[in-house]
Amino acid sequence: MMEEPYYRLHAFCCTNVRPEQHPRGSCARKNAVALRDYLKKSAKEKGIDGVRINASGCLDRCELGPVMVVYPEGIWYRYENESDVDEILEQHIEGGKVVERLKLEVEDGP
Amino acid sequence: MMEEPYYRLHAFCCTNVRPEQHPRGSCARKNAVALRDYLKKSAKEKGIDGVRINASGCLDRCELGPVMVVYPEGIWYRYENESDVDEILEQHIEGGKVVERLKLEVEDGP
Repeated sequence: MMEEPYYRLHAFCCTNVRPEQHPRGSCARKNAVALRDYLKKSAKEKGIDGVRINASGCLDRCELGPVMVVYPEGIWYRYENESDVDEILEQHIEGGKVVERLKLEVEDGP
Repeated sequence: MMEEPYYRLHAFCCTNVRPEQHPRGSCARKNAVALRDYLKKSAKEKGIDGVRINASGCLDRCELGPVMVVYPEGIWYRYENESDVDEILEQHIEGGKVVERLKLEVEDGP
């Protein structure tokens, strides 16, 4: 039951925060909020149509974070810095090609 | 480039909050946080595998809210109360059948 999409591409960036000593860590403790804001701002500056970049609650792959998931494809990424975010934006969100270097597999943790 | 999904079904419930007088309104001003918590708790109690219920930032269909989007299908719903949430959970999330009564179309606002 695939639908004509309301957004062509809908990315959710985990921005969950846990206490500093939590054993699983959390994306927000690894700069996820600033990196998501950077992605949102960069996508807007490029004027890419049909794309939405949202923050989300815990995506439960905390150990690998910061993580995002891109729907409807269901591609997951980890990213560490603005350079990683640029690559996801330019290669995947603009160009439609998966960034294999940053992609998470189903069998990757937690 | 559809992937084997990490989650079979991934629902994002907008819980964005805006100032009380904002002309667009916001999902959190229409009980979205409590309804999302109720959906998450109910799904957990039912022990449904492969499903994740996340809160998200603004999904930009504020006037219709509270709204959620269910991926990978890309089905959007509006819901007002626990009875609506029960129907989405039992009929769609458990049963795999769209709840036509609550479904948003692409051409629905804002």
